[in-house]
Amino acid sequence: MTTETARVEAFSDGVFAIAITLLILNIKIPLPAGGPLGTQLVRQWTSYVSFAISFVFIGIMWINHHRLFTHIRRCDNGLLLLNLLLLLGVTFVPFPTSVLAAHLGQADQRLAAMLYHGTYFFIAIFFNVLWRYATSPARHLLTHDVDTAAIANITRQYAFGPLTYLLCLALTWISVPASLALNNLLACFFALPPEWKRNRSG
Amino acid sequence: MTTETARVEAFSDGVFAIAITLLILNIKIPLPAGGPLGTQLVRQWTSYVSFAISFVFIGIMWINHHRLFTHIRRCDNGLLLLNLLLLLGVTFVPFPTSVLAAHLGQADQRLAAMLYHGTYFFIAIFFNVLWRYATSPARHLLTHDVDTAAIANITRQYAFGPLTYLLCLALTWISVPASLALNNLLACFFALPPEWKRNRSG
Amino acid sequence: MTTETARVEAFSDGVFAIAITLLILNIKIPLPAGGPLGTQLVRQWTSYVSFAISFVFIGIMWINHHRLFTHIRRCDNGLLLLNLLLLLGVTFVPFPTSVLAAHLGQADQRLAAMLYHGTYFFIAIFFNVLWRYATSPARHLLTHDVDTAAIANITRQYAFGPLTYLLCLALTWISVPASLALNNLLACFFALPPEWKRNRSG
Amino acid sequence: MTTETARVEAFSDGVFAIAITLLILNIKIPLPAGGPLGTQLVRQWTSYVSFAISFVFIGIMWINHHRLFTHIRRCDNGLLLLNLLLLLGVTFVPFPTSVLAAHLGQADQRLAAMLYHGTYFFIAIFFNVLWRYATSPARHLLTHDVDTAAIANITRQYAFGPLTYLLCLALTWISVPASLALNNLLACFFALPPEWKRNRSG
Repeated sequence: MTTETARVEAFSDGVFAIAITLLILNIKIPLPAGGPLGTQLVRQWTSYVSFAISFVFIGIMWINHHRLFTHIRRCDNGLLLLNLLLLLGVTFVPFPTSVLAAHLGQADQRLAAMLYHGTYFFIAIFFNVLWRYATSPARHLLTHDVDTAAIANITRQYAFGPLTYLLCLALTWISVPASLALNNLLACFFALPPEWKRNRSG
Repeated sequence: MTTETARVEAFSDGVFAIAITLLILNIKIPLPAGGPLGTQLVRQWTSYVSFAISFVFIGIMWINHHRLFTHIRRCDNGLLLLNLLLLLGVTFVPFPTSVLAAHLGQADQRLAAMLYHGTYFFIAIFFNVLWRYATSPARHLLTHDVDTAAIANITRQYAFGPLTYLLCLALTWISVPASLALNNLLACFFALPPEWKRNRSG
Repeated sequence: MTTETARVEAFSDGVFAIAITLLILNIKIPLPAGGPLGTQLVRQWTSYVSFAISFVFIGIMWINHHRLFTHIRRCDNGLLLLNLLLLLGVTFVPFPTSVLAAHLGQADQRLAAMLYHGTYFFIAIFFNVLWRYATSPARHLLTHDVDTAAIANITRQYAFGPLTYLLCLALTWISVPASLALNNLLACFFALPPEWKRNRSG
Repeated sequence: MTTETARVEAFSDGVFAIAITLLILNIKIPLPAGGPLGTQLVRQWTSYVSFAISFVFIGIMWINHHRLFTHIRRCDNGLLLLNLLLLLGVTFVPFPTSVLAAHLGQADQRLAAMLYHGTYFFIAIFFNVLWRYATSPARHLLTHDVDTAAIANITRQYAFGPLTYLLCLALTWISVPASLALNNLLACFFALPPEWKRNRSG
């Protein structure tokens, strides 16, 4: 974190932190008038799953954002705008997740799953655009001690994202649960550090 | 970012980040009981547009706030109060945007558009007052290495804002869509950096 | 801002920023089905006043919090707990303000005004307790270059707060509007810097 | 706070600050149409208690999080993920607290109390896992000037947490109020600093 990128990171942290905390508002409080508490708690199980998955996914996106900015030292107007676009995607996540939670196992579950995968597809695109913009040699936005291998590694892994989400989109026509499983696998992949050993021995 | 202005910027970042993230709460989750998902998703298209436009506008205001404070080094009580006034305008933005989204194409769309332009008119005024207060030579709030040309450039561009929003207000009597198009054009103008080349080659 | 108090201030900034931004959620969006837009916008004027006043008051409390922590250099467990108590008061402010906005001019306006003044009375007490704790000579929480006159000045002015809010409470039995006017006057008093000249020439 | 942990702490502060501020949204605004204001204010007393207790508990968790990170100097991917898990617990707190507030004294109060204690049980587990991960000698995440006694002290006290929450869970079968009293006692215990004297004389 350099002085120049400090405020972009602080603002992004704020947006991530709020997006991740607002998720709890989607879980309704069962009232005594609504019947036995146990039944009510169990009936809304999809909203707990939706809460947990959205939380973990936004958290993983935060970790990735954090990771990118450890390499970025300078900040220009283009980076600010691309970062805004990425944050637009992040704050939108609770919407398709809630739609999916409400429609899973219902008639329209395919459309809900497509909206869900489509959102992650666009976020993956935004991550790639931001990263390619920042690492473009002409812009000098990276830290002085550029770790070329680490950067090429991130670029390679990120290119993977949009393709897999397209595959998820296609998979919804065969099996919605299978497409969601693939989506979750991809999240686990992005949760793992691209430079696992460096972080620990650094 | 100096130590003295650090907390004002942190607080402002928080307000911008929350205002921009709360916008998603205005989009309703379509439930299975409400009919086909596709129809429901399409029917509320104005709330997506309203979400995206509010997001981008608050984002652009954040970029401008960020830009001003790269020139401001000191902070006094007057600056704190004027900054609060500006933030009051920022947190108010979701209200006129939602009103406009709900009334666009309806009987009262002119009044809704006037409320919308009026809000931006006041925010533009607050930006000008804050900037003129901070750059007033008597107050010594600017950084030591004042870039006189850059500051005069910002002052000139900002003076432009209130006048154009007044024009938007007048345009609502001829055509509401035209007034909104002009408003959006102005946002694009403020998204561009006044010192485009300096940021990149700095 | 020292390293030791940095995280307390960051956390407090977050709470202030969120409390001040959540206020907009209390303003309802008029829908086309609800009748003419103009009538609907005018009818809920108390919620705009309530929004603006809450915003300004929380803003002034933030400025005062900021002011106190320019003198505080160290942080112990007691200060953390007293700061939490103060933040509890701050996040509670939107509730009595909304109650007052809903009941002004109605049968129960006196009780609503008492709840409102009572909240500020407790916040004023918390500000005094926090400040007296921090300035207690035994605790060494102040900055090295203690400005004894400035500190005595703040102590004197803050002692004023609880007494005036008690007077507001008593005034509700004579005139609710008069008690609210006195409350607002007091807010203006706390918005003015106790060390006006120092800040500007520093 | 080191540069490396700065952004994790900033993000966590944001999540804590928002979770603690969202609590006020659970208190409903009594309207004139709902009957006498006094009656309405008194009737919802459980939501004030729920607000105050959630606020204090999240505040105490923030103080503990702050305390742990004064000892942690480095940050790796595992710590980021464990920290996310802990924050997941923190943002979930308002839900069981509201459920308990709604069901206290009703037929299902035991189940509501079990959900409540269970949440704190998991949070206590997450605190222990995070702390043991960070203090594991192989990972070198601690500050250079490790205070071995203070660290062993925290480890010992934290191990206490999950056990006591299990006891609270068991106690619900004998007396729900007694289990809640024990839960609150434990919160007071964690509010006290493990290194009381060091903080003050440091």
